[in-house]
Amino acid sequence: MKFYDCKPAPSPRRVRVFMAEKGIEIPTVQVDLRNGEHLKPEFRAINPHCTVPVLVLDDGTRLVSTAAIWRYLEETRADPPLMGTTATEKAVIADTQWRIEAEGFMAIAEALRNSTPGMKDRAVTGPVNYAQIPELAARGRQRAEVFLGRLDEMVGTKPFLCGDRYTVADIDAMIAVDFAKWIKLELPAGAANARRWYASVASRPSARA
Amino acid sequence: MKFYDCKPAPSPRRVRVFMAEKGIEIPTVQVDLRNGEHLKPEFRAINPHCTVPVLVLDDGTRLVSTAAIWRYLEETRADPPLMGTTATEKAVIADTQWRIEAEGFMAIAEALRNSTPGMKDRAVTGPVNYAQIPELAARGRQRAEVFLGRLDEMVGTKPFLCGDRYTVADIDAMIAVDFAKWIKLELPAGAANARRWYASVASRPSARA
Repeated sequence: MKFYDCKPAPSPRRVRVFMAEKGIEIPTVQVDLRNGEHLKPEFRAINPHCTVPVLVLDDGTRLVSTAAIWRYLEETRADPPLMGTTATEKAVIADTQWRIEAEGFMAIAEALRNSTPGMKDRAVTGPVNYAQIPELAARGRQRAEVFLGRLDEMVGTKPFLCGDRYTVADIDAMIAVDFAKWIKLELPAGAANARRWYASVASRPSARA
Repeated sequence: MKFYDCKPAPSPRRVRVFMAEKGIEIPTVQVDLRNGEHLKPEFRAINPHCTVPVLVLDDGTRLVSTAAIWRYLEETRADPPLMGTTATEKAVIADTQWRIEAEGFMAIAEALRNSTPGMKDRAVTGPVNYAQIPELAARGRQRAEVFLGRLDEMVGTKPFLCGDRYTVADIDAMIAVDFAKWIKLELPAGAANARRWYASVASRPSARA
């Protein structure tokens, strides 16, 4: 297998932390997003969608989304389980991930990509250029604030987001909180539950992956 | 269990077709989105995110995303499998779903919700009101056209999107094609593979669910 990564970017980090928790090591290639390496013909031949992470399997299959790579690694390296063990656990984790993705990651990405001068005409990932929409940057920021505010209730008094066990939802939400720092947002000062949870998950060795 | 549905809306239909393929029947409640029933206190008590579909499990657990409901039903009613059998199949289906969701559904929803007069201030689903952004409607429409154009290559000469077997990716993409009609877009006239595939999946009895 081969893993295409970009160390500073949030999405491939979601895969790296997942791999670290499972003790998986895969030969890794760094793709220099800041210098547009993902838009060059050599990388387009690997992933025409021009995004990382990418996991190339031994049979040549290319997985080009975080969700697909997580699924593959969970199926092939079950221990420790990060996506649930019972049907209900698996579904609750999927529900939580959906929320983090739609209300967290996408909102933060909207705010960032529609306002950062270096991302002019790159408001959406992928091979097609789209102009920035300043109103969308403002709305994304507002939605990201709503998401960060809700995390406190989502965690509640539980050790982890989905209960007593660390799961992929904790990876996802931790990295969403870190990604929010790119647009200068953080967990509300009074969010005691979310702050306690974040301190716990961010102190795991895997968080440095 | 109890299923909260809205017959005309695309997301709960994704669950209905999935259930029909598996032969699952669950007592169903219709939620009248057009008259704002999802925003009233009675429904907020069931799903504070004010969206359908919702599946309430027998233990009271509430699943409030299509992804989570699919996962639960796949885990508890394995036959016929709709989300893959081998690790690679499961991952390829997840990859395809991700693309349909991010580039299809979300683009169409952006175009629709940011332009329809009846959705003023409802540009994003959920309990918080957000104003429409006309530029985002235009961009969503452009992205939806790109997605519909890509479906031909995604299907290629295969019987179904992910190979020889009908999967959840076919459900998702079929409903994305139908959802695109809401913004008056359709598969390109020359998209022979995509049109052959659509005719096949849309003629299954489940498509009428």
